[in-house]
Amino acid sequence: MASAIRFDIRATDGGARFASLVTPHAEVTTPAFMPVGTRAAVKAMAPDELRSMGYRLILANAYHLAVRPGARIVREMGGLAQFMGFDGAVLTDSGGFQAMSLAKINSIGTDGIKFRSHLDGSALMLTPEAAIEIQQDLGADIMMALDECTPYPADYERAQSSLELTAQWAERSIMARRSEGQALFGILQGSIYPDLRRRSAMQITSLGFDGFAVGGLSVGEPKQAMRDMAALSAMMLPADKPRYLMGVGTPQDLLAAIAMGYDLFDCVLPTRNARNGSAFTSEGRISIKRAAYIRDGQPLDPRCDCRPCRQFSRAYLRHLYLSGEILAARALTEHNLFFYARLMREAQAAIASRTYKAFASYLLNLLGEPNKPANLTNKNNKNAV
Amino acid sequence: MASAIRFDIRATDGGARFASLVTPHAEVTTPAFMPVGTRAAVKAMAPDELRSMGYRLILANAYHLAVRPGARIVREMGGLAQFMGFDGAVLTDSGGFQAMSLAKINSIGTDGIKFRSHLDGSALMLTPEAAIEIQQDLGADIMMALDECTPYPADYERAQSSLELTAQWAERSIMARRSEGQALFGILQGSIYPDLRRRSAMQITSLGFDGFAVGGLSVGEPKQAMRDMAALSAMMLPADKPRYLMGVGTPQDLLAAIAMGYDLFDCVLPTRNARNGSAFTSEGRISIKRAAYIRDGQPLDPRCDCRPCRQFSRAYLRHLYLSGEILAARALTEHNLFFYARLMREAQAAIASRTYKAFASYLLNLLGEPNKPANLTNKNNKNAV
Repeated sequence: MASAIRFDIRATDGGARFASLVTPHAEVTTPAFMPVGTRAAVKAMAPDELRSMGYRLILANAYHLAVRPGARIVREMGGLAQFMGFDGAVLTDSGGFQAMSLAKINSIGTDGIKFRSHLDGSALMLTPEAAIEIQQDLGADIMMALDECTPYPADYERAQSSLELTAQWAERSIMARRSEGQALFGILQGSIYPDLRRRSAMQITSLGFDGFAVGGLSVGEPKQAMRDMAALSAMMLPADKPRYLMGVGTPQDLLAAIAMGYDLFDCVLPTRNARNGSAFTSEGRISIKRAAYIRDGQPLDPRCDCRPCRQFSRAYLRHLYLSGEILAARALTEHNLFFYARLMREAQAAIASRTYKAFASYLLNLLGEPNKPANLTNKNNKNAV
Repeated sequence: MASAIRFDIRATDGGARFASLVTPHAEVTTPAFMPVGTRAAVKAMAPDELRSMGYRLILANAYHLAVRPGARIVREMGGLAQFMGFDGAVLTDSGGFQAMSLAKINSIGTDGIKFRSHLDGSALMLTPEAAIEIQQDLGADIMMALDECTPYPADYERAQSSLELTAQWAERSIMARRSEGQALFGILQGSIYPDLRRRSAMQITSLGFDGFAVGGLSVGEPKQAMRDMAALSAMMLPADKPRYLMGVGTPQDLLAAIAMGYDLFDCVLPTRNARNGSAFTSEGRISIKRAAYIRDGQPLDPRCDCRPCRQFSRAYLRHLYLSGEILAARALTEHNLFFYARLMREAQAAIASRTYKAFASYLLNLLGEPNKPANLTNKNNKNAV
């Protein structure tokens, strides 16, 4: 089957790649960050705002959309991009992550994942074949094969059996695919065990996927283990296809992962943190709640020229946040996504000019180290999607 | 004291007036609807969006802003318009309405209203003088004298004593005023008693206010009583000053009130209804929740060209609303405020061309009668602001 996407590497700098990814709905320059639009909306944002920040590719979730409004409805409405009014492309995650994050309402067998709808308790059997069918109905530019996202911690045997299941499901996903106009990515697992990561890479890259994702990271493991596994996996992936590091991460993580040769990223950090009053700035994260901002007439980040930074002071944003105003979530989300978009644009330019290493060092020095472990999602986090 | 505003009537048609109201921050053409921005934000909207819909004057609330962030803070930040980043003017309500809507946490005496903060229970004494001082600090273009908003129902004696208190407070408000750069409006009361409405009009219009507001309506009384009292009060108001009908109302109410000679309006309907999934359309109100919209690819209102109607289908908005997405509140709020803004623009044009009566009949016929009594605010409504 001819690939539904074209991936052209325009420049490399060390391991880092600057490339063009052409999908049925958009041309995306990479490295690219995908804002998370779980339920066919990036929380608090309008599609034209994402577009004007430069985003051409966003992520949505097959499981959530199959539950509501239903994949067939989205198909009838012309597919996800059309349904959302988004002038761009959509990648859909398959639901394997939700099998972990919503673990209380599902069970995993060889055939697939049995969900109880988080809305009404009705049963949904997500097999690799069903996940493909749903994503075909959703009209995703890029579909993800159903995997079992190995939770952390997992002992070696557990991680190994999870990986084997993911490999079987990957083959079944390839077989189930019908639509020529949609790309399909496979997902690597292997927890924090180097030999399992290698094995998973060999299994998945031997199949005819259009691109490869590394999963099962940023699920609670130590930051160094995340980076080691990401680096190891990247080296096992073919150079001529897109590489997607799932669920990562902080700006610092992205800078490191770009150097490893990753092209695509997604993470709830910029959007979720925004709703919790936390902003990414050129000098690190700030919490808008701080009493120090009561009379602060400066923008969130004096070096930023996003729309909120051109309009609002920290004092006003603090007031909005404490008052529970929707505009606080909007402004901080827009600011954070602008920050991530600019980070990617600057990384692309640095790779093109072969100055990526200096660029990354400079930025890491400005940003400082994030003070949290790579633990964006775990079962105790009721915000997990 | 020279007035801080200029009010020039450009055309009349029957009782209806088309005028220009120039305040320190903006020129407003009237009849004008003021979106409600209680806490210095119109819920779900950004100030530049209000501006691009044509809004030059919005309403904020002195009591709420005195509690948080504090009027002095707003003063230090350059006043409300500057604080909000709003390129326009602000009218502040004094807090008299909150004395009624938050009745559990206040008591009213001759001197003023004793509030317990709805946030932390701390005491706040709102006298007519304090209300002026707060509004001067807030830098409102138009300040409102503190009144007692007579609740409904009120027996004649209660309504009379409430009216007398409001008259005393009106005099004290005039005396307390210091800032030359801010206009001050007086408020009429009188419940549903015609002679009390007349008496209140005589009392308040005898004082040196820059404009006059009719209060104590849309608080639970029958729709016809509201319209009768509004019509009666309008006739008692001087022709050369702005007339503001507070808290009203539906598009149908506005059309009627414009014919009576009112110039300014505010109401939570377009914004609150939006957050509850209800949209004003050229064919009446619709609820976006309806199952009929599951596959409906049409915009909210096919005759509307607001930004949401150019971007989103009913099917998508229904999905967003049921998913609790902020974008649903944003899109419906923007649509409803656009509907109100257009209603006012068209009313202005109709008055200018002396076709107001035909215009209003045409629209009333399209819109149908609203099916609810004039009861936007009562003590059982926990959303009361």
